[in-house]
Amino acid sequence: MKRISTGIPEFDTELEGGYPEGKGILISGDTGSGKTILGLHLIYRACMDNKNCLYIATEETPEDIIMQAESLGMDLRHFYNEGKLVIQRIYEERVHEAIASVKFGNDRPLSSDIVKLKDIIVGINDIVIIDNIGVFTLTMALDVFRAQFDALTCVLSQKGYTTVFIMDETSNRRTEYVAAYSVYGVIKLSRKENPYTNKHERYLEVTKMRNTQIPEEPIRYKIAPEKGIVFLSD
Amino acid sequence: MKRISTGIPEFDTELEGGYPEGKGILISGDTGSGKTILGLHLIYRACMDNKNCLYIATEETPEDIIMQAESLGMDLRHFYNEGKLVIQRIYEERVHEAIASVKFGNDRPLSSDIVKLKDIIVGINDIVIIDNIGVFTLTMALDVFRAQFDALTCVLSQKGYTTVFIMDETSNRRTEYVAAYSVYGVIKLSRKENPYTNKHERYLEVTKMRNTQIPEEPIRYKIAPEKGIVFLSD
Amino acid sequence: MKRISTGIPEFDTELEGGYPEGKGILISGDTGSGKTILGLHLIYRACMDNKNCLYIATEETPEDIIMQAESLGMDLRHFYNEGKLVIQRIYEERVHEAIASVKFGNDRPLSSDIVKLKDIIVGINDIVIIDNIGVFTLTMALDVFRAQFDALTCVLSQKGYTTVFIMDETSNRRTEYVAAYSVYGVIKLSRKENPYTNKHERYLEVTKMRNTQIPEEPIRYKIAPEKGIVFLSD
Amino acid sequence: MKRISTGIPEFDTELEGGYPEGKGILISGDTGSGKTILGLHLIYRACMDNKNCLYIATEETPEDIIMQAESLGMDLRHFYNEGKLVIQRIYEERVHEAIASVKFGNDRPLSSDIVKLKDIIVGINDIVIIDNIGVFTLTMALDVFRAQFDALTCVLSQKGYTTVFIMDETSNRRTEYVAAYSVYGVIKLSRKENPYTNKHERYLEVTKMRNTQIPEEPIRYKIAPEKGIVFLSD
Amino acid sequence: MKRISTGIPEFDTELEGGYPEGKGILISGDTGSGKTILGLHLIYRACMDNKNCLYIATEETPEDIIMQAESLGMDLRHFYNEGKLVIQRIYEERVHEAIASVKFGNDRPLSSDIVKLKDIIVGINDIVIIDNIGVFTLTMALDVFRAQFDALTCVLSQKGYTTVFIMDETSNRRTEYVAAYSVYGVIKLSRKENPYTNKHERYLEVTKMRNTQIPEEPIRYKIAPEKGIVFLSD
Amino acid sequence: MKRISTGIPEFDTELEGGYPEGKGILISGDTGSGKTILGLHLIYRACMDNKNCLYIATEETPEDIIMQAESLGMDLRHFYNEGKLVIQRIYEERVHEAIASVKFGNDRPLSSDIVKLKDIIVGINDIVIIDNIGVFTLTMALDVFRAQFDALTCVLSQKGYTTVFIMDETSNRRTEYVAAYSVYGVIKLSRKENPYTNKHERYLEVTKMRNTQIPEEPIRYKIAPEKGIVFLSD
Repeated sequence: MKRISTGIPEFDTELEGGYPEGKGILISGDTGSGKTILGLHLIYRACMDNKNCLYIATEETPEDIIMQAESLGMDLRHFYNEGKLVIQRIYEERVHEAIASVKFGNDRPLSSDIVKLKDIIVGINDIVIIDNIGVFTLTMALDVFRAQFDALTCVLSQKGYTTVFIMDETSNRRTEYVAAYSVYGVIKLSRKENPYTNKHERYLEVTKMRNTQIPEEPIRYKIAPEKGIVFLSD
Repeated sequence: MKRISTGIPEFDTELEGGYPEGKGILISGDTGSGKTILGLHLIYRACMDNKNCLYIATEETPEDIIMQAESLGMDLRHFYNEGKLVIQRIYEERVHEAIASVKFGNDRPLSSDIVKLKDIIVGINDIVIIDNIGVFTLTMALDVFRAQFDALTCVLSQKGYTTVFIMDETSNRRTEYVAAYSVYGVIKLSRKENPYTNKHERYLEVTKMRNTQIPEEPIRYKIAPEKGIVFLSD
Repeated sequence: MKRISTGIPEFDTELEGGYPEGKGILISGDTGSGKTILGLHLIYRACMDNKNCLYIATEETPEDIIMQAESLGMDLRHFYNEGKLVIQRIYEERVHEAIASVKFGNDRPLSSDIVKLKDIIVGINDIVIIDNIGVFTLTMALDVFRAQFDALTCVLSQKGYTTVFIMDETSNRRTEYVAAYSVYGVIKLSRKENPYTNKHERYLEVTKMRNTQIPEEPIRYKIAPEKGIVFLSD
Repeated sequence: MKRISTGIPEFDTELEGGYPEGKGILISGDTGSGKTILGLHLIYRACMDNKNCLYIATEETPEDIIMQAESLGMDLRHFYNEGKLVIQRIYEERVHEAIASVKFGNDRPLSSDIVKLKDIIVGINDIVIIDNIGVFTLTMALDVFRAQFDALTCVLSQKGYTTVFIMDETSNRRTEYVAAYSVYGVIKLSRKENPYTNKHERYLEVTKMRNTQIPEEPIRYKIAPEKGIVFLSD
Repeated sequence: MKRISTGIPEFDTELEGGYPEGKGILISGDTGSGKTILGLHLIYRACMDNKNCLYIATEETPEDIIMQAESLGMDLRHFYNEGKLVIQRIYEERVHEAIASVKFGNDRPLSSDIVKLKDIIVGINDIVIIDNIGVFTLTMALDVFRAQFDALTCVLSQKGYTTVFIMDETSNRRTEYVAAYSVYGVIKLSRKENPYTNKHERYLEVTKMRNTQIPEEPIRYKIAPEKGIVFLSD
Repeated sequence: MKRISTGIPEFDTELEGGYPEGKGILISGDTGSGKTILGLHLIYRACMDNKNCLYIATEETPEDIIMQAESLGMDLRHFYNEGKLVIQRIYEERVHEAIASVKFGNDRPLSSDIVKLKDIIVGINDIVIIDNIGVFTLTMALDVFRAQFDALTCVLSQKGYTTVFIMDETSNRRTEYVAAYSVYGVIKLSRKENPYTNKHERYLEVTKMRNTQIPEEPIRYKIAPEKGIVFLSD
């Protein structure tokens, strides 16, 4: 099984070289846990490795994404300008839909068919990142979500894409964590108080990664300016 | 990235100079946690810095707001009188709507389209504060709230406004904390008992602030007469 | 800001002289926590200070209220007889409504428009006490309750009344504690077991009081015969 | 205020002589907590004091009740035979209703208007005991229950009856403990494990009793054969 | 009051000789707690005492039941063959109903009128065991279940049957434990980790048994091959 | 009772030789707990013992399954190629259904009649494994699920198949763990933090196995590359 580097050398070591190529993985976590930052590491490294990357952004503008990457020491603008990185402007589309729906008295502004994402995700891509898949789940019945998410995962995998699904913890909990059953791997980010030191610590946990001997313990990390995620040894 | 002073010098230090200009931030907390007091610091400082401020007040009269600021040592009346600070009287409008709705047998008194706030928020403003966005969410389905709040955040940001959303914790919990995903930064105020001393302590926690190295630990503070929020060193 | 004595000297000290005149405050607590007893202190002291008092009683007869006050050493009968204290017999009205509704097959006996209370609360009053506002909330949707309670609070305040809302904890929890956001101050009564002594202790906590430096810690008290609420020093 | 002996001398001492005459009190507790046994003490003592007693039994036959009293050393049969104690056979009526409703395809067998109980509770009674009021609450909306229970309590009190409502904890929890707000006193029975000895202990707690200085601490008791409830000193 | 031996001598001792004749008792517990095994003890002993026994089996075939009894050292086959023990094949009936309902597009396969069980339970029986009453409760509204279960309990008792209701904990929790209020006795089986030894232990607790001085503490037991339930002394 | 080897010698020892032939057992656990890996052990051993195996795969392609087995040191491809192991491609069918349902505006893509699985499970099979039965339960009412799952279990048992149901913990919890009542045995996999060492440990617990003296304590295990599940001695 081919693997793709995460851009974080210690993480690659933990994953037998990286995350599986051609499969879907899920990154979940609460507000401020660093989901998007981890996603930026994956994307930046993929760009550096000359891969074609597609970023589906539901909550930020392309400029926001690029600025955030820059503050972490990753020059994404370069790849964006030369077309290695394509950023789909789903965020602004959602805003226009919401405003229009109020104007025309339509209560349900956001079309939420996940399967339709397959029609957006076209072209020659190596890595596709969807940040955040959670916004498509708000009105979806659980069985519809599971069926559609399974379908999307399968279709993207058949096209040979490697897909990174970022999902906020609120949506993950509301859909009863079923997304985890459909993907090849799951990475959970959290931040909690250490009961001994009373300090808040950040943890990355790999709860699932098929065909991979996964680390049994959560990995402590910090987010450093100009560097992003840095693993800490205990 | 330009930053705006919070009016609390130690807080500015923690935020690399202040909160980001032109973006939206969310302040949440329980009854009596000091949400409005923090908002008054932001507004007062902005007025002092000669910025145009708009205060959307859903639960207090302008007089209540100005009196509360005075008791904390901030002379807002001065700026209010000369028009640097505009206070929208949403509170009294809501009361009239409620009374009318009972008179005419209408069960749902409060129009709750958040997007419509964009039509209220007009003119040349530097800072807009909405205290409390929670009252607009009571009948809103979660997906509608998320879409509308995303839209409002985006539109206000495009106009160049810096927006401070104050949201009561009850509404925040009911909307499953999704507001946090749409804004640039989140500040959470709380009050809890210290298990060692059995004293109640107040904490300010920055759970998210894009492009900013945020303080990892909650900051303890008190509310002092004639001063407002004062950070305490541990 | 003018303040009104609570009738409990130590409590007045904690509140910079008393509770704010012309505003609404909320007293909440569980069964047997002493909500009505605290209300009787406020009313009795107001009568002693020659104020006009209106008592809206939803769960007790006037005789019950006067007898309970007497057992706590407060001679309310005197003020009741001379008209300084008016007790609205909402309790018996509710009973008649309930019986009639069963007779005529009407399932919803209790008209629950809170705003209509403003038509009951008439005349020249200084203090209005509503014990217990919770009975009006049982069928009310949360948004309707919030809008109506805001409206009632605002209207009574505009008339210059000082209003004391007593609310049982069950109703407060069911309405997700939103009443607290509309009033000027909140007093919470509770009774809990001390984990060290295994004794049950009573606590009064001021969780909110605008324009007032509130006590940060809950105050322990007992209910003494012929005296009512007596604060205890730790 | 006149008081009625509970039949348990130590309990009378705790209640300044007994429970208030002419008012309603509520006894609640889980399965096997001894609710009916406490009710039998009250009834037996009332019979001994030559009072007219009415027992509304929803879950047991008269024979079951009398046998259980006998095993606790209380000869109720004697009073039952001479008519001092009347036992209403609501239990068998409910069974017939349920069977009929199945036969005729009616899904809702049990008429659950609590107010109608006032038409059953007739004649010259001193003490009325309803064991268990909970069976009337299963389909009732919370507001209807509160209004009807308030009405029943008020009507019975106006007739001069002293009423003892026994309510299973399941129904009490389902109706969000609102019954407690309508009655004059509340007695809660429970059984819990002592964390130090790991032994199960029974506790009686008076959480409310108007016009009465109530014991602040729960009282430990046992159920002894031929004796019933016996208070234990700590 | 006549009592029936449980077949476990130490248990009989705890129950003043056994469980009450002519009444209903409830056995509840989680998966694997030993509910059916306790039921087999009761049935086997009743057969040995020459009683007529009826076993209503909703989840196992007669062969499964007899084999399980044999592995616990109880030769039920002998009594089954000679007709002392009748096993109603409700299990297979339920399967056929379910398959038919799918074939004919009927969504609700299982007729769930508990009262109708009284038409199945006919003939001359001493002991009736229904294992598991829970399967009849899945679609039943709580009030219907309570009324019907009360009715069934009452009717079987009037016929002179002694009834053992086995109910899985899931159904018991879903019906809010109301079954316990209708029966004469309740036996709860559970399995939990001892916090000191970290070993899993099995407990039998009698939470209710009218006219019986019940053991206050849970009784620890094990399930031994060829023996079944064996009480352990602490 | 005949038993089938699990393929894990120490596990066979704990189960008196293996799991019961001709019955249904349930394996449940959270994401990444190793449910599929345990299933692969059972299947691989059955193939080795020359049994005919049918694998109903709802979330993986045959290639995924075979590759995962290979990484654990089990050469399933060999048996797959020669037809001893048949893998039903339910996964791809589900994806096509989901896509079609979106195209044609049908909201409920997945036909969820569990009983219909009996029409898929045909031919001469010794072992049938359904991984994961949970996907069929998403829209099913609890009573329908219980009736259908009982029916499927019974029908497969009558055909002489030994069935292994794998169910994700989310679905198991949503269906209130009722599947456990229908099967002959239940194996629960979990992963939790040891409170003393703060290390995460994996546990296998047999919560039910009829006719079998089951291990009272959970068994700690690890997942080793090229080996799969390896029991650890404490």
